[in-house]
Amino acid sequence: MRLTTMTDYAMRLLMYVGQKPERLCTIAEVAGAYGISEAHLMKITHQLALNGWLETVRGRGGGMRLGAAPAEINLGAVVRSIEPDFYLVDCLTQEADCSLTGRCKLTGIMSGALQSLMQYLDRYTLADLLPPSTQIETTYTPRPPSGGPHRQIPVALG
Amino acid sequence: MRLTTMTDYAMRLLMYVGQKPERLCTIAEVAGAYGISEAHLMKITHQLALNGWLETVRGRGGGMRLGAAPAEINLGAVVRSIEPDFYLVDCLTQEADCSLTGRCKLTGIMSGALQSLMQYLDRYTLADLLPPSTQIETTYTPRPPSGGPHRQIPVALG
Repeated sequence: MRLTTMTDYAMRLLMYVGQKPERLCTIAEVAGAYGISEAHLMKITHQLALNGWLETVRGRGGGMRLGAAPAEINLGAVVRSIEPDFYLVDCLTQEADCSLTGRCKLTGIMSGALQSLMQYLDRYTLADLLPPSTQIETTYTPRPPSGGPHRQIPVALG
Repeated sequence: MRLTTMTDYAMRLLMYVGQKPERLCTIAEVAGAYGISEAHLMKITHQLALNGWLETVRGRGGGMRLGAAPAEINLGAVVRSIEPDFYLVDCLTQEADCSLTGRCKLTGIMSGALQSLMQYLDRYTLADLLPPSTQIETTYTPRPPSGGPHRQIPVALG
């Protein structure tokens, strides 16, 4: 049983970028750090940006940074966003053709098991994945309001 | 996210055999009923028999039947027995080589999520997967003791 490689990479990408709040990170850099595919990371970056969890800056010197505070990036939401194949057994797909359809209780129990796993992930955010030593550094600084830049209070780990 | 095909097939095999307590079932028959591979079913049958959940009878007229009462075949135990790849992300493998090893909290949270899913499955048995209409038929009759055959009280669905 496992999540797809894409979800695995999404988590690692967020963890990497979350630990470098002082600068933009590039896809090449993250791919090199983990030894994983740039092409996959590009696709994931796009998906995470669509959800507002990453901000990308184009052009020379461009790259990505977190688009929200680590404590606002929920792990369950990230998994749901990336995972394309969200069922545990074949018969949970729409296309499944099984002789037991309609009187089989496996789908209900498996759906419940999956829900239990997701509810667990829903209790955590990216802030829980970052090492305590980087918690102060990774404090999210939102775009400065008209009054000038300000810093948020660091998010304490629970 | 999904279980392997093997676990999916194991569940369906047990459900099929559990609904035919009056006779032996053959692998060819189960493969035909679900439209799945005989080779895969042979491997699964062997694994389930090793755990005592199936009994196999060799030779002409042979086949398989449940080796325990449906209420004694725990779904969590079946999944643990069949599933070879029991981690959600790459870094839960022994062989994983990640630059964050030792200071990464992803593995702990993912292990917790998996444990949550398994604890859910641990609450169910094969008896919960069988249609109510077959519950009386599927009452398990253990091998007769020396005093002669006897029947167990049917297991009621919760």
